[in-house]
Order: sequence, then C-alpha cells, then structure tokens
Amino acid sequence: MKIVIVGGVAGGASAAARARRLSEEAEIVVLERGAHPSFANCGLPYYVGGEIESRDRLLVAPIRLLRERLRLDVRVRSEVTKIDPQSKVVTVKDLETGKEYTESYDSLIIATGASPFRPPLPGIDNERIVSLRDLNDADRMRDLATKGATRAVIVGAGFIGIEVAENLVRCGIETTIVELAEQILPPWDREMILPLEKHLVAEGIDLRLGASAKQFDSAQGKVNVTLNDSSVIAADFVVLCIGVRPDSKLAAEAGIECGPRGGIRVNDQMETSIPHIYAVGDVVETKCSITGDPIQIPLAGPANRQGRIAADRIFQRESHYRGTEGTAVVGMFGQTAAMTGMSEKILLAKKIPYEKIYLHPTDHAGYFPGAKQMLLKLLFSPDDGKILGAQAVGTSGVDKRIDVIAMAIQAGMTVYDLEEAELCYAPQYGHAKDPVNMAGFIASGVLRGDQPIIHASTIADQSPESLFLLDVRTAGEYAKEHIPGAVNIPIEELRDRIDEVPAKQPIAAYCQVGQRGYLATRILLQHGMNARNISGGYRLWSILEDPS
Amino acid sequence: MKIVIVGGVAGGASAAARARRLSEEAEIVVLERGAHPSFANCGLPYYVGGEIESRDRLLVAPIRLLRERLRLDVRVRSEVTKIDPQSKVVTVKDLETGKEYTESYDSLIIATGASPFRPPLPGIDNERIVSLRDLNDADRMRDLATKGATRAVIVGAGFIGIEVAENLVRCGIETTIVELAEQILPPWDREMILPLEKHLVAEGIDLRLGASAKQFDSAQGKVNVTLNDSSVIAADFVVLCIGVRPDSKLAAEAGIECGPRGGIRVNDQMETSIPHIYAVGDVVETKCSITGDPIQIPLAGPANRQGRIAADRIFQRESHYRGTEGTAVVGMFGQTAAMTGMSEKILLAKKIPYEKIYLHPTDHAGYFPGAKQMLLKLLFSPDDGKILGAQAVGTSGVDKRIDVIAMAIQAGMTVYDLEEAELCYAPQYGHAKDPVNMAGFIASGVLRGDQPIIHASTIADQSPESLFLLDVRTAGEYAKEHIPGAVNIPIEELRDRIDEVPAKQPIAAYCQVGQRGYLATRILLQHGMNARNISGGYRLWSILEDPS
Repeated sequence: MKIVIVGGVAGGASAAARARRLSEEAEIVVLERGAHPSFANCGLPYYVGGEIESRDRLLVAPIRLLRERLRLDVRVRSEVTKIDPQSKVVTVKDLETGKEYTESYDSLIIATGASPFRPPLPGIDNERIVSLRDLNDADRMRDLATKGATRAVIVGAGFIGIEVAENLVRCGIETTIVELAEQILPPWDREMILPLEKHLVAEGIDLRLGASAKQFDSAQGKVNVTLNDSSVIAADFVVLCIGVRPDSKLAAEAGIECGPRGGIRVNDQMETSIPHIYAVGDVVETKCSITGDPIQIPLAGPANRQGRIAADRIFQRESHYRGTEGTAVVGMFGQTAAMTGMSEKILLAKKIPYEKIYLHPTDHAGYFPGAKQMLLKLLFSPDDGKILGAQAVGTSGVDKRIDVIAMAIQAGMTVYDLEEAELCYAPQYGHAKDPVNMAGFIASGVLRGDQPIIHASTIADQSPESLFLLDVRTAGEYAKEHIPGAVNIPIEELRDRIDEVPAKQPIAAYCQVGQRGYLATRILLQHGMNARNISGGYRLWSILEDPS
Repeated sequence: MKIVIVGGVAGGASAAARARRLSEEAEIVVLERGAHPSFANCGLPYYVGGEIESRDRLLVAPIRLLRERLRLDVRVRSEVTKIDPQSKVVTVKDLETGKEYTESYDSLIIATGASPFRPPLPGIDNERIVSLRDLNDADRMRDLATKGATRAVIVGAGFIGIEVAENLVRCGIETTIVELAEQILPPWDREMILPLEKHLVAEGIDLRLGASAKQFDSAQGKVNVTLNDSSVIAADFVVLCIGVRPDSKLAAEAGIECGPRGGIRVNDQMETSIPHIYAVGDVVETKCSITGDPIQIPLAGPANRQGRIAADRIFQRESHYRGTEGTAVVGMFGQTAAMTGMSEKILLAKKIPYEKIYLHPTDHAGYFPGAKQMLLKLLFSPDDGKILGAQAVGTSGVDKRIDVIAMAIQAGMTVYDLEEAELCYAPQYGHAKDPVNMAGFIASGVLRGDQPIIHASTIADQSPESLFLLDVRTAGEYAKEHIPGAVNIPIEELRDRIDEVPAKQPIAAYCQVGQRGYLATRILLQHGMNARNISGGYRLWSILEDPS
C-alpha cells in the first residue's frame, strides 16, 4: 500500500501518523508545499505577539521526528500540481529546484487546507498587506510588528482577526479592525458578542463595524487604507483576516466533486467522488451534525479526526465522521467566547423552530472570592426540548460549560437532561446548581409553561398599552436605571401591591438577571394574570440597548 | 396545602423555594434546628481559613429574604422532636425557650442532613475537639485557629478534612492529618491520589496514613492526641472529619424505613415509606445511576435537585431523581482532584467487569505558555465500551474534563463517543485532540485490539523471563531513571534493532506517558510479537513505585 498525502499540517499529519500505526508496511509519502509539516497553526497569532516566545515550540512534530519515528517520507517545499486519477499518479514540483516529477499512489489523501482570502481590491498586491497562514507569514508579521511599526489595520474580525488584534496590541501597536458585518466573530449571535466589542474598544482597539477597505495605496513605507466611508488610515501594515477559501483547485482540476463554496465533497469516511482519493481538513465540505446540511468549518479538531478516519478507511476500518457542531472558542484580553451547535441566526435562516433563554450565572459560587459573571444563551427545540446550540461569553468557566453542553448535543440530550445533570461542585469550581443546570431549569420551565418568557429584543416594539413593564427590583436598583416606561414594585411587595398591576394587560416582568422576574411571573400567573419574564433581565436589555 | 420542611439548608431550602414557585397558596413552614437556614455549607472550611472573609457571604439566602420574598414561615432554633404520621403532626421544640408545640402538615419533607461522626473514644468529649457542620462550628474553629493556636490534628482525610487542612495551613497552623485508610480522599482510587499526598506533604502537612486516634487527653489548654502507634501529638485543637451519618433518628422513630447505613429510603420522587412524607439531601439513601445500587452521597448538587423533585411531587409534577454518579471535585493548595462514576475499587468490589486506561495530557496545547500536565484515568466496559467512571488530578482543566465525561456517562455514551467528541479548542483552552478525545482514542484502541495494554501495577509481579520490559524512550531518559530490568531501544531505532526483542516472549513496552509505547506496540504487533503498552507509561509506574 502506497499512500500519498498532499499537505502535512493538521489533517494530513494526523492521517499520516494513523496510517503508520495501522501499517508498518505502507509506504507513506507526505508532500508539503510549505517549509514545515505539522506546525501549530492555531498558535501563530500568539507567536506574532510574543506570548509564544520560541518559534521552535510551534513545530509540533519536527520533520526529523516524522521521518525517524513514523518513517514517513516527508518532502517539504513540494507542491502537487496535478492529480491523474486514471493512472493514479500525482505530479510534484520541487519548489527549491523547480523540477517536476511524478509519484504514484494506491490511496491519495488531499489535505491542502484553505488559504486566506485576498479580495481583488486596488492596491492589494503590496508586501505590507499580509495574511497569516504559515510560519513564514508569522515571521513576516512578527518582523513588521516588532520593528518600529506603530499602526496596523486588520481587515476582518473573525477568530484570527481578533487573535491577531490582541497580539498586535500586546506589541504596542495601535490597531484598527475593519469588519464588514455589524459585529465581530460572525458565528456568534450579535447580542452575545456586544460585551466583547466594548471590551475590545476598552483595550484600545479602533473597531470599525459595517466598514470595509476599498483601496490600498503605498506611501512612504506605509499603506494608506481607504475605507468605504472614504476615511484613510495610514498603517505600517495591513493584515487580511477575511476568512479562508478551500485550496481545492488541484482537486477540482482532477474532476473531484466540490461544493458551491469550493469545499471538496466527501462522505462520512472522507472518500471523495473519485475512488482511492480521500480529503480531510479545511479543504473539505463536511456536514452539520444537527441538520445534516453541508458546511465548511475550518477548525483543527475536526481536521485531526478526519485525518484519522481517512487512514482508517484506507485500512478497511469502520470509522465514520459524525459531522460538526461547530464547537469553538476564542480568547481576547482575558475574555472568552465559546459556542457549540447552531446559532439563532442560522436557525432563523434555516427556518428551524427554536426557543431561547439567557442567563448570567457566575463561574463559581458567588460567596467564594473571584466569582465572575458570564452571559449564557441556550437554544432548544420548542417541541421536545432537544438542545440545538449554546453560546457563552465571560472571563472564566465559559469553555467548560460549552464543552458540557457540546457533549449533551452530541448525545442528543434535551433541556430536561441539563436540569438533572450532575456536575463537579465545590465553591471554587462551580455551583451546587451549575450554570448548565440553571440553563436546564429555565428552559424546561419555559417548555412546561411554568415560566413564560418574553425577549428583551422585542420590548421596544411594544406600546405601553400593549405591554405593562414591571420592574421587580429594589427601589434603589430601579432609581439607578430601568427600562423606560417600567413601573417598579419590588418583588417583596408584589403580593401586597398586586392591585397596582393591570389584571387584563399583558405583563413583562423583569429583574436584574431573571431570577426575581421568574418568581414575579409565578406570582402573577397564579393570580390569573398574563405575565411573562424578560429572559436575561435588565442586564441583557441594557446590553442590547447600548451596543456602542 | 400545608407543607412542613424539617431542615432549611441545601435540600430543604430548595424544596421550600420550589414549592413557593409552584404555589402561592401553600402554607410553607421551614423548621431549622440551627440559627441559619440556607447557609453555604461548602464554604465553611474557606471561612475558617479566611479565604472567605465575611461571615455574611455564607448566608446564601438570609432569613429576611426567605420570609419576604418567598413568604416562607421560617423558624430557626426549632427542632422537630417527633413525627406522628397518623395524625400528620410534628412536635417542635423551640430551642430558645425550651417550649414544645405541634404543627400539622399535609406534606412533610425531611431534610435533616447528616452529622459529623464522633467516634466513642476516650476523651472525645472535649470542647477543643470540634467538627464542622454549621456556622457556629465554623466560628468556633476560626476562633481556635486565629487566637494563638499553633498545632492542630485533623482526624479523617476526606473532602472536608483536606479542605480544613489547607485552610489551617493558611492560618499558619502546623497540621497533622490522621487517616485510617492507606490513602487520602477514599472515593478516588489510590494511585490517582498519590501525587496529591506528596503535594500535601510538600505544603507542610504531617500526613499519617493507616493511622487512627485512640485517645484524647486534656492538658494545659491543649489536647494530647494518642495515635494507634502510641505516639502523642499535643494539639491546640482537634477537628473530626471522619465522615457523616444521616440524621435519620427522627424518621426512624416515626417508622419510616431506613437503609442499613441509616439513610432514609426514598423512591425516585423522594417519597419515603410513609405517605405524604418525603426526604431529601444528605439524610437519604439514594441510588447509583450506573448500578442501581443503594448509596449515600452527601453532596450539595444532588440535595438541591432532590429538594426540587420533592416539591414537584407534592404538586403532582412528574420529575424523577435519576440517581447519582458521585461526580465530585476537591481543591487543595492549587491542585484539583475530580471524579465521576464508579471507581476501580468499587467495580472490583461489585465484581463488575471493567478495563482502564491512564494518560497524562496537558490542560492546553503544550506550545502555549502555562500548560500543566494532569493524570486522567478512564474506566469502561470491556464489552461495549460504555463509560463507567473517570478520575483526574492536576493543576487546571481537571474539573472541565470530568464534567464532560460525567455528561457522557449520564448520556450512556461509550469510549467510541469520546473519540468523536467535538470540544472547544484554542491553544490556551485545550487541544485539537482534547484529553477527552485522547482518552477515547486509547480506550477504543484497547477494545479494538490495536493497543493491548498492561498495567504498571502488575509489572512487579512478573519475572524477567515472563515479561520483556522494553523502554523505548531516548538513551538520556533511560539513563536518568527506568523500570528495573528494562532494556532500552529508542522508538526511532526499534525497527532497525527489532532482532534485539525476543520474538516469543511477552513484551511490555513503555515510554514516558504512553504515546511512544503505543507506537512501539503497533510496530511489534505487526512483526507478529506479543506486545503490550504499559498504560500511563513510566510516569504512572514511578507514581506507584514511590508512594512516599
């Protein structure tokens, strides 16, 4: 068995290692276009900023190790220029010498990854307009960032854009982020991300949302970036982080089927449309495990698992890729955003029925020092309570809760299972009622009709006559700030002052985060009133109200 | 509906709050023997040590709030001395006045908790021999610890004993822990806990395992503690943390059925053997959700959920307690131990077939600063791969992985599901192949026969003739330390020096943590040899070898 693997980073390297463990006999050739196989892609921004000091640390599996330990025939600076599926041969170009040669295969694994998108804008071909794909790019950017630059523009506020921004600020560089969308981190729902946008601004980032770069001009060792509003920023360099496109040209030219967005189509054993050819990682179109829809998710975890699965398939093993939930996390200036499953905007776009709840739990017991509040959103089916997605943003404990809910989604669990979940508890780690339990309690209460809710985002659309806004916080909290038009009856007084609440009118009760509002709703419902609790309380309303 | 709740801490308080939310009409009487309802039990050790500075912070729901917000009839210093199920009446003693009166009920919830065990030893009745159940105990202990004491003895090294020890050391007190078992934290398997025992000793704790106190003598304002080896420690005070016993006397006297260890027997709706009487929290005998066996688990999470369920049942709601997996976490001096499901010792005792694997992953990507290694153990069914339990010990990321595996157990998932789990990854949070995935890879490999393993604990029992020990680490690692009798062939040279490995003899290969040993095993197996990998590698072997 001769296996040729095109691309030696996450998916390709995993496939190669797995293939070797499955077969000592196999000839395994890894053809990597760049100078390094198996480098730590996800560490590049932190190397640029100096958090990761040594370049060597990014070489996860040095080439010597791959050769000696796994007996892989690793060839770097080797670009595959053509696949001939008929004769099962690839053409390889040695980028050092320029010479071309052919290599036959029994099985071929395409792991060519994805390239940062470079939009065809005027002036884009400028050596000071960089992107971040490999170690050479990182070296170049580190060089730019540490040798006298004072001003940078990042185009795109996705994962990499945000991570690069944090690292440039760490280098003391005044940084502007230009993002076409009205929010950073497009996979998240906007309201979840608003607190992080404020945080970025507080950290000194010049954040331009709903903006785009339209032209770049070289001038005196700088790049003048012209935005769509005609403002011009004189930057020492520009980083393009607009997203990536699957490097599937090679595959497409060989007649391998690709999806509309360029990803190579594969089945759940990573087989492409052409026999003996597999594809894994950022270059493939995979499927959403919840809807089954095709999706392109350039993440390291899925790439690694897909690599294993392709190797398994080659050696007649029964392993199958289950699709992705898009579970992801990103850090910025001490804040964390994590998500799993479907976002509300995707559910809306796909017209999938859903309900949602918000809560603001602390990462651990409030009475133990250092507790930090997070914002957690749970999306679930209104029919059977099946969990559809979750997002969380905060300082700590965020990735833990999303990982737990990710497992619940993968197990097909419901919000009722979250109610009953038994999780680690000691006061410095969590709560006797963990945020995951609390999310389950609230969502289950909504589905059982115990806790009808109304969403803060819809309050502004209602006239005072159609909705009585009831603030059940203390008089002090109310005096400090409240939703315009709300009437204050502290929860402790509600039963005695129930006559002040209109009996016939729909009522939206709220408190600071939702708990007193829930109790108020219970009291009012039991008095036969038409009451709902504002999910996420005043805190969520104020996030929505003041996005700036 | 009149509900009387005996005991107002975790389970009782949860039941009361839930009952009020379900019914505004209900009369809800909470009878608490102590001075405070709903205090933060799990925070007491940290209040003693001053990490939690304010006593008020421990009052989770102050009595005023329970009365005003939830309209609960809360009566503190009120002890129920008798239950009469026939007439549905309890007798209450006002501990302030000594007066007794009766209170009728429609539904009665017993949430009397559990008391620290005081063994009937000579001299045990000494005001300097304390335990930690409530705020008064904590006040007393804080007083003892901060007013000139220099030496304390803790009897018992369970959760509370360990937490108290950390906090006494924080107060500058020389602390001895006396534990009858041969390990601290009995719920964990011993090998998992060995590194923590070393850590305690390094932090200055005088740890006496396999030891017991047999006599206490008052002398000059101190307590002389005589141990079973006749040594005597002159302590300023002694803390008893030997475990707790359900406070079920009241229930038993009323004819309510209790288990052999004193826990009140309940069904999955928290109903006792007598109609209209429910029991929740530390006083009940619940069941293990994995085996269905009766079990007493005094933990806050289950107590809270049980309280909700009892209230639900009273109002004809269909909620059911699913049993416990014993998911728990404890911190000590910056280290964390967490577990879920069954331990190996319980599996052995119950004769349940199992397999186990060990690994030493880091909490996040090794190339990102601050990565810390943990020890993770996974127990699973050798038949279908169903996960039976997991334990982890380390500096960070430990509770996260155990929570994820706890969800997997609750979902009935297998090790194959852990292989495919999609979890949050960015280099400061985890790995593209998370420790949970790695555990799944290894366990699945064992079950598929790809990676036969042998356990470090069994190596010593084998003669050199019956087992060829193959160290595949570098010559430098081998020279530094290795398993006696092992032959060193670095993994990179193994293929070329395969003749040096006996073809007919069973082989145990190992490296530092298991990964190179796995590859070596694969190579040897493919040469037709009888090879196994030592699970957990040299690191685990050295933990077992040097427990001191």
